[in-house]
Amino acid sequence: MLNFTYNNPTKILFGNNQLVNLSYEIKKYSDRVLLAYGGGTVKKTGLYDRIISNLKKESIFFTELSGIQPNPRITSVREGIRLCRDNKIGFILAAGGGSIIDCCKAISAGVNYDGDPWDFLTKHPPVKNPLPIGTILTLAATGSENNGYAVISNDETEDKLSMGADSLRPKFSICDPELTFTVNRWHTAAGAADIMSHIFEQYFNIVEGADVPDRIMEAILKVAIKYAPIAVEQPDNYEARANLMWASSLSLCGLTASGKGGGDWAAHAIEHELSAVFDVTHGIGLAILFPNWMKYCLSDETLPRFISYANNVWNISTTEKYETANLAIEKTREFFNSIGIPSTLKEIGVKEDRLEEMAAKAVRYGPIGKFKLLNKEDVLKIYRMSY
Amino acid sequence: MLNFTYNNPTKILFGNNQLVNLSYEIKKYSDRVLLAYGGGTVKKTGLYDRIISNLKKESIFFTELSGIQPNPRITSVREGIRLCRDNKIGFILAAGGGSIIDCCKAISAGVNYDGDPWDFLTKHPPVKNPLPIGTILTLAATGSENNGYAVISNDETEDKLSMGADSLRPKFSICDPELTFTVNRWHTAAGAADIMSHIFEQYFNIVEGADVPDRIMEAILKVAIKYAPIAVEQPDNYEARANLMWASSLSLCGLTASGKGGGDWAAHAIEHELSAVFDVTHGIGLAILFPNWMKYCLSDETLPRFISYANNVWNISTTEKYETANLAIEKTREFFNSIGIPSTLKEIGVKEDRLEEMAAKAVRYGPIGKFKLLNKEDVLKIYRMSY
Repeated sequence: MLNFTYNNPTKILFGNNQLVNLSYEIKKYSDRVLLAYGGGTVKKTGLYDRIISNLKKESIFFTELSGIQPNPRITSVREGIRLCRDNKIGFILAAGGGSIIDCCKAISAGVNYDGDPWDFLTKHPPVKNPLPIGTILTLAATGSENNGYAVISNDETEDKLSMGADSLRPKFSICDPELTFTVNRWHTAAGAADIMSHIFEQYFNIVEGADVPDRIMEAILKVAIKYAPIAVEQPDNYEARANLMWASSLSLCGLTASGKGGGDWAAHAIEHELSAVFDVTHGIGLAILFPNWMKYCLSDETLPRFISYANNVWNISTTEKYETANLAIEKTREFFNSIGIPSTLKEIGVKEDRLEEMAAKAVRYGPIGKFKLLNKEDVLKIYRMSY
Repeated sequence: MLNFTYNNPTKILFGNNQLVNLSYEIKKYSDRVLLAYGGGTVKKTGLYDRIISNLKKESIFFTELSGIQPNPRITSVREGIRLCRDNKIGFILAAGGGSIIDCCKAISAGVNYDGDPWDFLTKHPPVKNPLPIGTILTLAATGSENNGYAVISNDETEDKLSMGADSLRPKFSICDPELTFTVNRWHTAAGAADIMSHIFEQYFNIVEGADVPDRIMEAILKVAIKYAPIAVEQPDNYEARANLMWASSLSLCGLTASGKGGGDWAAHAIEHELSAVFDVTHGIGLAILFPNWMKYCLSDETLPRFISYANNVWNISTTEKYETANLAIEKTREFFNSIGIPSTLKEIGVKEDRLEEMAAKAVRYGPIGKFKLLNKEDVLKIYRMSY
């Protein structure tokens, strides 16, 4: 087990009706709030009204940033920073899924930064004096509600890049499974795939002997495998929504990577190029890529990890080790198919003539991955296997 | 899954040589420290010298409270409070296992409290303005390094009672597995039993459908079952010590009870009476009691939980459910025996003529337990089954 520091102070308020605690939690930090949300779903579901009635009752001033898109754009970040500065905002409240939360983290970092916020994605200056953030989660997927990472897209440059700082961890996150009852089949499946993908990035790691995080990661995978099909079929199944939501919040908060020396993150980098160019739903892109990434990484060196995965997650064990590993990979693909996710990039509108350019971009800062190091040719092969 | 709040801001610095960060972490809070430790093991192992050289290099003032006993006494707490007040201490550093850390939490709560600190164990006044605490862990067992609970004994009244507050969570804990290489077989086994007992208290719970914590708890049990025998046989096996240490820190920090509505804690209450009267090693007492507590709780209502335990922790599955459950309970006892823990209270010096009095004391505030509610007669039966 490798050395690590684990420090996750985000307060999780989990369960139905936790929204009643909203103003109490905000007022610990400020009474001037930026309320950020997406395309209006929060209005349709009534969440917006519940939030503003809660804020108004406690005389909390708020201004709004709406229209934040999936794969949130740097333009929304710039707009949010302007709103915070103009209105002397002291707290940012994200109501939505990972995209909304990520956008708010970038705003938080940018308000007291002199340059353009895109710098955080490209030059990574230290984050100083960020505004405190809170979240009201409406989608179980990215885990952004319980970590300090953000991924931001730039339409001009067709880039989708990540940033992160411990100081950007939300002060609190309200995780009410009922707020995800309205999530449709496609995004429920994509969310589950996202949760599982985060675990894959950390689980497929050559560090052995770190059983605590390994067994916990298998636990989270088993939860997603059990409950994603239920949530897809029965959108208002509280137990399924609750387990997926808590699994999401634990899958990228530092706990699962403890002692493993960090994750691989090559598949995420490969997927980000798809999302940047074709605005692919992140979890869907990952679900298509991962079985192929696994196949591509399978070797004598990495075999033991796939055996653990096969035995402990899928209960697969045969006398032939490569057969066991391949069965588990195939099972992974079948599982994603079973919850409605296609198997190929072609099916989701990716154009073959841009694969090479995307492969080049995925490795623009050098080879990617740790479990297996990938250069441009490797990435291109994985794109083609997935096409 | 039941509603819950999870908020665990303790910073864990895990791995070998993390002691180099000690002064940096302390100075965030104060430069006047109470250094608390036990019977001198820290001096024999050289840890004491490493600590004071670290403090002196950074010109941190410190005074010492030594001689804190296993099952820490309220007298040590009072002495620590006096030292803190006399020396205008701003930070308490616990170097040791759970007993030292628990004692420091009670000191922390007591320094700015007007009454006698035993009040915190009996009357539970709110903890106000506690001194910040840090820990250097030398025993993987109680999980006190990563929570706000403390258990304190009183020789005069033969009481062993608990207290707790979120504000007593350590600011940081240095968890270096190498610091546990010198722990002997007995205390290594007792520590593993303590870790597993904490999980049992939370796992044997009638709330079903909270798969995230259930699967995580099974993960921690599997880690303890794999690594305790290795640590007992090979005291300097880093991998075994590291996995046990991290399992200890996660087993009572709020994570494993999330969504389960809190633990049962009857077996702990029953054990505390043993420790209060006979100064029994906590984990040993628990290991003797738990298989009998399990047998006593087994019923049609609680059977499903034992089936999960048998299937998922011990890989036991037969066609007859009660047989499956009983095999798992027997396996639990055999496991504790295999790491050198006796099966009966008689073997560890408990006197039969005091069982009834201890049973009465265990329920002095009313019936105990949630999985199965126990009154005095029930407790006495469990003592007798364990005798």
